[in-house]
Amino acid sequence: MNIAIYGYGNLGRGVEAAVKYNPDMTLVGVFTRRSPESVQTLTGAPVYHIGELLSFKDRIDVLIICGGSATDLPEMTPTLARDFNVIDSFDTHAKIPEHFARVDSAARESGTTALISSGWDPGLFSIARLYAGAVLPSGNDYTFWGRGISQGHSDAIRRIAGVVDARQYTVPKEDALASVRAGENPTLTTRQKHLRECYVVAEEGADLERIEREIKEMPNYFADYDTTVAFISAEELKANHRGMPHGGSVIRSGISGISGEHSHTVEFSLRLDSNPEFTGSMLVACARAIGRMHSRGEVGCKTVFDIPPADLSAKSPEELRAHLL
Amino acid sequence: MNIAIYGYGNLGRGVEAAVKYNPDMTLVGVFTRRSPESVQTLTGAPVYHIGELLSFKDRIDVLIICGGSATDLPEMTPTLARDFNVIDSFDTHAKIPEHFARVDSAARESGTTALISSGWDPGLFSIARLYAGAVLPSGNDYTFWGRGISQGHSDAIRRIAGVVDARQYTVPKEDALASVRAGENPTLTTRQKHLRECYVVAEEGADLERIEREIKEMPNYFADYDTTVAFISAEELKANHRGMPHGGSVIRSGISGISGEHSHTVEFSLRLDSNPEFTGSMLVACARAIGRMHSRGEVGCKTVFDIPPADLSAKSPEELRAHLL
Repeated sequence: MNIAIYGYGNLGRGVEAAVKYNPDMTLVGVFTRRSPESVQTLTGAPVYHIGELLSFKDRIDVLIICGGSATDLPEMTPTLARDFNVIDSFDTHAKIPEHFARVDSAARESGTTALISSGWDPGLFSIARLYAGAVLPSGNDYTFWGRGISQGHSDAIRRIAGVVDARQYTVPKEDALASVRAGENPTLTTRQKHLRECYVVAEEGADLERIEREIKEMPNYFADYDTTVAFISAEELKANHRGMPHGGSVIRSGISGISGEHSHTVEFSLRLDSNPEFTGSMLVACARAIGRMHSRGEVGCKTVFDIPPADLSAKSPEELRAHLL
Repeated sequence: MNIAIYGYGNLGRGVEAAVKYNPDMTLVGVFTRRSPESVQTLTGAPVYHIGELLSFKDRIDVLIICGGSATDLPEMTPTLARDFNVIDSFDTHAKIPEHFARVDSAARESGTTALISSGWDPGLFSIARLYAGAVLPSGNDYTFWGRGISQGHSDAIRRIAGVVDARQYTVPKEDALASVRAGENPTLTTRQKHLRECYVVAEEGADLERIEREIKEMPNYFADYDTTVAFISAEELKANHRGMPHGGSVIRSGISGISGEHSHTVEFSLRLDSNPEFTGSMLVACARAIGRMHSRGEVGCKTVFDIPPADLSAKSPEELRAHLL
């Protein structure tokens, strides 16, 4: 199957790196808005300007769109779905129905197959919520994120005057996790679920107390959380906080029995060294599925809920039944 | 959707109890080989003799077969698939391909839809293995079972002379679990993965040393494991070991990156108060999916790998996208 990458940032590189683990997939190229000569790919994959994309129409089975959810994907995915089978990782949860409708309309008109909101959340975490909820209709869902880097929160700190660089880790609170895992069905506030851990490089002579206060009082981002701030050197930031780890847990606790007398806990957890590479790996598996669904004549916009698990795997149905079932 | 239960043991009761949590499902009745008058159902569902089943052909959308894998299901599922959409929980892993072929042939000839090997292992654990393997093609799978009651091992102890009753718990070893979760990719022997914990009620005056030795040296069941044996009273067994808890974890540890420089761990875990009720709940969700797939004209034998997750849920696609994605 021939795939291509549209947009070459961290996620695009993650998709490129994932291709080597999937020998049935061929990377046709990377398409960028930048000048192609200025872009050096990880594996030497060819780079083209997005203006050339349409001339590749017959050579690309599935196009993986690696843009941002705020402004890129709402425009890119419906537009590109007119000419290609496409996949994105749109993650603005509140706007998913609207995005779905626009992509579905474009894909149905053109007879293409699209998948939106793939990755791990939305993506694998969504799938975990669905299975657990289908098996335990009476229960409560909990999602914990981390320990991992939040790009958005790190950026917010960097915008404060006197800050040179910053990294913010989202950390689930152990006591909340333990209570949920024990099936206690706690009601948890934002503050009780996650801690925000900040590592900040400040300008020389900057007012550290003011920076710390501005971080901790920042509405939406930090004000509702317990937040710790540590000032470190640029060298330490580079040495110890360069990676992009993430992960988390989706937990459902539910009941069964004639009087609800039995309780059960279903948990799906991820511990990721590299958020963009893991997300890229999921997108490549989804490209395989979308290519297969398109071959079967299934057009329009899909979500991970619509993909039979077998379609994600390079293994044959016979192998899957013999070795994984 | 109208479902029926074929076979009324622990699993059949689990399915019956699950129906109350799924208001879109109606239980038409329970079919038994015993005399129907002798069977009292949990919810008052009507009981019929299996000889009456064919007269219900037009009133049952999906038949859930609750028989044993050793001798019941290899005969029942292919036979019943000639007249009904059917689901079973066939769990003899080595014989799945053969069972699949026989059920598939029967279902295709009759235009019915069948699902074999559902539940949690095989079932949800299989699904977890598939997703994790599709996203991390280079890695290792680990499955730990327990802490939970093994019916087969409990029965094996009961067959020893001088034993009145017994319960055997399969217990994953914490240090093995910790090593796998840390992504250390250990090579684990049978003995290193699980402990077998036995609670035995002996006849008065029985030779306890001999019983303990016979348990610990029993080939296949205990000889390859660290096994603990505790002799307890019948009252204590009834008070503390009456339940049917189970659970476990499927863990995959895999790599990504151009040089395999990043590692990731994906874990799916269950903690179940009642193994048969949880399995029954999964079978009811699968009945919904098989009924829908049959309505779409998808006939033949399926496995959980073939079911789009959305088909398991009572929620509409719009609800799923808006609230679970």
